[in-house]
Amino acid sequence: MPLRYLTAGESHGPALCAIAEGFPAGLAVDFDAVNRDLRRRQKGYGRGGRMKIETDEAQFLSGIRGAVTTGSPIALLVWNKDHENWKELVSPYARGGRKFTQVRPGHADLAGVQKYGLDDARDVLERASARGTATVVALGALARQLLARFGVTVSSRVVAIGEELRRSGVPPTAAQRAAIEASDVHTDDEAAAALWRGIIDREKARGSAIGGAFEVYAEGLPAGLGSYVHPDRRLDGRLAGALCAIQAIRAAEIGEGTRVDLPGDRFQDPIRYGAEQGFYRETNRAGGLEGGVTNGAPVVVRGFMKPIPTMMTPLPSVDIATREPVSAKYERSDVCAVPAAAVVGEAVVAWVLADALLEKFGGDTVGDVAAALEAYAARLR
Amino acid sequence: MPLRYLTAGESHGPALCAIAEGFPAGLAVDFDAVNRDLRRRQKGYGRGGRMKIETDEAQFLSGIRGAVTTGSPIALLVWNKDHENWKELVSPYARGGRKFTQVRPGHADLAGVQKYGLDDARDVLERASARGTATVVALGALARQLLARFGVTVSSRVVAIGEELRRSGVPPTAAQRAAIEASDVHTDDEAAAALWRGIIDREKARGSAIGGAFEVYAEGLPAGLGSYVHPDRRLDGRLAGALCAIQAIRAAEIGEGTRVDLPGDRFQDPIRYGAEQGFYRETNRAGGLEGGVTNGAPVVVRGFMKPIPTMMTPLPSVDIATREPVSAKYERSDVCAVPAAAVVGEAVVAWVLADALLEKFGGDTVGDVAAALEAYAARLR
Amino acid sequence: MPLRYLTAGESHGPALCAIAEGFPAGLAVDFDAVNRDLRRRQKGYGRGGRMKIETDEAQFLSGIRGAVTTGSPIALLVWNKDHENWKELVSPYARGGRKFTQVRPGHADLAGVQKYGLDDARDVLERASARGTATVVALGALARQLLARFGVTVSSRVVAIGEELRRSGVPPTAAQRAAIEASDVHTDDEAAAALWRGIIDREKARGSAIGGAFEVYAEGLPAGLGSYVHPDRRLDGRLAGALCAIQAIRAAEIGEGTRVDLPGDRFQDPIRYGAEQGFYRETNRAGGLEGGVTNGAPVVVRGFMKPIPTMMTPLPSVDIATREPVSAKYERSDVCAVPAAAVVGEAVVAWVLADALLEKFGGDTVGDVAAALEAYAARLR
Amino acid sequence: MPLRYLTAGESHGPALCAIAEGFPAGLAVDFDAVNRDLRRRQKGYGRGGRMKIETDEAQFLSGIRGAVTTGSPIALLVWNKDHENWKELVSPYARGGRKFTQVRPGHADLAGVQKYGLDDARDVLERASARGTATVVALGALARQLLARFGVTVSSRVVAIGEELRRSGVPPTAAQRAAIEASDVHTDDEAAAALWRGIIDREKARGSAIGGAFEVYAEGLPAGLGSYVHPDRRLDGRLAGALCAIQAIRAAEIGEGTRVDLPGDRFQDPIRYGAEQGFYRETNRAGGLEGGVTNGAPVVVRGFMKPIPTMMTPLPSVDIATREPVSAKYERSDVCAVPAAAVVGEAVVAWVLADALLEKFGGDTVGDVAAALEAYAARLR
Repeated sequence: MPLRYLTAGESHGPALCAIAEGFPAGLAVDFDAVNRDLRRRQKGYGRGGRMKIETDEAQFLSGIRGAVTTGSPIALLVWNKDHENWKELVSPYARGGRKFTQVRPGHADLAGVQKYGLDDARDVLERASARGTATVVALGALARQLLARFGVTVSSRVVAIGEELRRSGVPPTAAQRAAIEASDVHTDDEAAAALWRGIIDREKARGSAIGGAFEVYAEGLPAGLGSYVHPDRRLDGRLAGALCAIQAIRAAEIGEGTRVDLPGDRFQDPIRYGAEQGFYRETNRAGGLEGGVTNGAPVVVRGFMKPIPTMMTPLPSVDIATREPVSAKYERSDVCAVPAAAVVGEAVVAWVLADALLEKFGGDTVGDVAAALEAYAARLR
Repeated sequence: MPLRYLTAGESHGPALCAIAEGFPAGLAVDFDAVNRDLRRRQKGYGRGGRMKIETDEAQFLSGIRGAVTTGSPIALLVWNKDHENWKELVSPYARGGRKFTQVRPGHADLAGVQKYGLDDARDVLERASARGTATVVALGALARQLLARFGVTVSSRVVAIGEELRRSGVPPTAAQRAAIEASDVHTDDEAAAALWRGIIDREKARGSAIGGAFEVYAEGLPAGLGSYVHPDRRLDGRLAGALCAIQAIRAAEIGEGTRVDLPGDRFQDPIRYGAEQGFYRETNRAGGLEGGVTNGAPVVVRGFMKPIPTMMTPLPSVDIATREPVSAKYERSDVCAVPAAAVVGEAVVAWVLADALLEKFGGDTVGDVAAALEAYAARLR
Repeated sequence: MPLRYLTAGESHGPALCAIAEGFPAGLAVDFDAVNRDLRRRQKGYGRGGRMKIETDEAQFLSGIRGAVTTGSPIALLVWNKDHENWKELVSPYARGGRKFTQVRPGHADLAGVQKYGLDDARDVLERASARGTATVVALGALARQLLARFGVTVSSRVVAIGEELRRSGVPPTAAQRAAIEASDVHTDDEAAAALWRGIIDREKARGSAIGGAFEVYAEGLPAGLGSYVHPDRRLDGRLAGALCAIQAIRAAEIGEGTRVDLPGDRFQDPIRYGAEQGFYRETNRAGGLEGGVTNGAPVVVRGFMKPIPTMMTPLPSVDIATREPVSAKYERSDVCAVPAAAVVGEAVVAWVLADALLEKFGGDTVGDVAAALEAYAARLR
Repeated sequence: MPLRYLTAGESHGPALCAIAEGFPAGLAVDFDAVNRDLRRRQKGYGRGGRMKIETDEAQFLSGIRGAVTTGSPIALLVWNKDHENWKELVSPYARGGRKFTQVRPGHADLAGVQKYGLDDARDVLERASARGTATVVALGALARQLLARFGVTVSSRVVAIGEELRRSGVPPTAAQRAAIEASDVHTDDEAAAALWRGIIDREKARGSAIGGAFEVYAEGLPAGLGSYVHPDRRLDGRLAGALCAIQAIRAAEIGEGTRVDLPGDRFQDPIRYGAEQGFYRETNRAGGLEGGVTNGAPVVVRGFMKPIPTMMTPLPSVDIATREPVSAKYERSDVCAVPAAAVVGEAVVAWVLADALLEKFGGDTVGDVAAALEAYAARLR
């Protein structure tokens, strides 16, 4: 897998950090677009206060010169503007304040302190926090720009908040994308939006939280990314794995994957050929992937997000210091973060696909990749 | 990740082959149990003829001496008993017969020939075939034996065939396991079984095929496997990725992951503590994983299988040689393979968990692993 | 790294096994050439009896159809013809005979039984044995055929046996290669050959063993394989690592790497340009690698082999069962295996370079790789 | 391999950056010791001006709280104090100044611009520069602190500058270490030091540069790290690979690896046993590694460094813009950096060994690792 990365950073530490290795040289980087994606991750109906205070921005350190990639590793920082207030509590150089011992159900808190032999769940929650997805989104923004260079676009829409799935399976048109971006629940379906806002309001009033689902789409991919030859090279597994590794995402679906009621003659997508289009399908229940390989149709995957486990009304729990029952402490107040999760979903999908593209076409420069891709497209015709 | 493997082999080639590297020394291997899992993979209501002809057996070549692992890589073969009849067609040394050019919708056939520049889809389907899961099951059987040495058991049940999901979320009791193993649709729910057999019969009569869903359970795991510290170390992502990399598995769910209708106060599992049990939960909607880390409750994951795309009634397709429309050729006749998929699901879950266990406890011998695990368990008390 | 492999197998077990994943489709495989390399590994003045008994041959199981690669994983076996006599002693299914407890200095015997908690060093020596290089040579033979398709040739010569290094640094001509292949000490320098045979005879008479050094060459590589952008992508490190991972190889040198007496003005290779040749050098002290990247000159690396530690005259050691001093048991009688080591050296160098080539040029078919390579060559002109 | 890292950063960019993933929780970090190693890397007789201007310091961002590791990824920055003067030339946001087109022999310059399709070798040299070893040293300082927690110490000495190797093969005593640290040529051999300074002065006067060799030692390691079971798990290969991936290191030697003149009876180290010491050796020609596994004796490896290729007296080269012959431009003026290379050598050896230790003993906390190590030590007794 030619693209690799590591991320680091705590929610209230000085900064989040990421290094990406494997980007080809010669890619023009749009820094504003990266920051735009960071801001898209911070939006949404039902978000808490912190999102309004901070506006994330990526500071690039390396691997890019004069806004063009050089082939060298790209390091980026997202400074935590709030860190100043937490400096004595959460910093490589200090560890102050009260210990966090009232571990929260649904978070890594308890398993984390057990695993790492800690007596302060703050050491866990600072890293386990979904704040870490800011680096993932920044990396995904780079991957998306790489894909865009080759005609691939990645988008998303929310398809459920607190109620039954409203499957679409079809990438949004330009107009729909504009509507989705304008929507505070990341949808172009106004009826759904109204309903979902109502559900969010209801759960906010109850002091609870609510999850949902989103679809991510990738259009313009050539057939033949990923492979059936070994389990770990299959794109369906790689995409599902990447989605379920996002905080609070608990299920992933490729195309119409959970529609187990459909028999084979209504599930598979018949193959057609036309002189102009080449091979194509009229349906896309496969979500663009057959045998773990792209088939030229849009990739369509779905992520399911559980409710954020920190709520105004706390859940029964235990204090790890005293082992006495407690009500798990309230740390933060998002009622719903599904629109943000869709943006993170775009990021991980973009990353996996950019990786698969480079795996197939090699190339240390975007020009070399483009030439290989064109030669391949000509071979398929 | 301490455990790694590669598999190889074509469906009608001389043999399937797998190498596993990273097993600790000192594990007593039950060869019969491996073969038993191979046979479990071949069973099920609605399987076609081939399953009855062949009874798979694993031949071990290395890494084991006198039925005990030595720490060296384990190689195993599953000979294809049918190969004799295919020798001139599919062999490293020969390539005979008619080319397979009528690519089948739902399979890797078309994307495969495009990707690898082939003019005979047989080169694709021989490898993409679910026959390859025989090696995965054999490897999983080894992983399962390793886990069993540390008190971890892995089991499964089918929860849907051709209709709505019948969630259980709870590992079967011993009696239920016996019923499941005795059932030709891998369930202990007789009413469901009758219904599903009816659905299978219906689709068989229609010349179609049908999918479904299964749950895999792992009991006895310590809290603290996997990690929240980096996306690729999260067990939820690793499990979902492994499941969706199985042929025909198109969605994966951790615990109650798709229940997006449940608000937070009804989704998260409250934490309890008792002098005897230590920390525990009364519910397990998290499927044993919080923050990508085991929490001590049973791991519960769900895989969704699409209908097998080769059917008696073929689908519209195209001949890659002539580019003319055709009806995609019939190669094989399973109507439903969900019970077999559950066995493969057990295998990949066992593998991922064995890997996570060794990652945490190191140890080049089962004795060293056991000692580390006991010391950890004592630390958690 | 697009190419990966696992090997397995014990020296006297039923078979050695290897799986290679990542070879592009469309490569015509010359099976005889693979077996020729296996036999080259078995030759040499000063080899013991076993080499004469067995003639290794690779049986291919998969990934190749009708002698052409399909893109699927390639599995191969090298059956141990001698296994019949060891069946009760060394087999997954049996563990007989006397335990091997007199651990041999210079082998993995003692550290191995300690690490893996064993009481029989046979479990160690069967895997640690240089017999395992048979699979490495078979894999290397495939890599060499891939490289050859793109005009790259890999060769070697021995440059020392038991005495001072006779550096060449220059790949052999066709005539020299023929002489080297005909020589039982793998050199085209007859004077050296006579001297080395004398040294081998002397050490044989003394009941000892002797090591030496060899050079491996790769000609025809484009500039730009490997990379300086991250330590683990540098080809110098990858080549040195691969060489020192061969049994008994204890040092590796790139170009004139140990010539620490040469000042910079006599070490670096001035760069020239000619309309016909493009960029070139008149010297090659860099061994074809600058900054961890190929520079278009032949890659030249050197491996240094210690004497085989099993000798007619045993060394002082300890019995691990009794902890009493013993003379370490004699297992096998090669006096010198440097010519064989050169063949293994070729194999690992070929593998690393094939991997680097695919990393740069991607491509799932040899045709795609060739097209990308040609486009790149045109870009460099 | 449980420990992994990525580094990024250009020589004159804003900062160097590294992320390390896999450090256990509970390790007390001595920040001063990290900075001390950074300064050790900057010292040495024969260094140029820049080393005197800048004093590197690591700023830690994450993975550590109050000077104790938490198990989360550790990010660190080394700000380039000189960047202010290069801001318009080398920055993600700007690309100014004259292009660097007179590529320097011995550097990655030419192969780099070819590979990455660049027209300005500055994009190459900024990353290929040995300045990047600052991050490697910082990471190595962390690994060293982890090893120290388990009684393992890593040290080094220079054994050649511009003349024949003065092998030692024996770790320095405390007194010798003090002398080595005090020495500007990193040796406790005063006669050698005087000679080497003379050689450096001579080459400085000639406008040239000079290389040398160093030994790195690790004491206190248990037997059984690394493994013979697969080539890529052998510690000899991993150490040699890591050494040769350091800029300008062109050869690596394990123990007495290049002494191909020694017959087996004088090369292998006889095994002894004593009630108190357990198994031991009186000699250590194996450099602490047999079969790719530590044997309990000190690990001793040697790195050979070529002369730094940038010299006052430039070498013949070519301008890549005009393709006309030129004298390669002078960028920097170190005459000899072998003492610094020894410090980098310590860092990479510490990293590889810390990785091997965690691979064997698992453990998410230093306490767990310590317990596993003690249990193992008891098992070996």
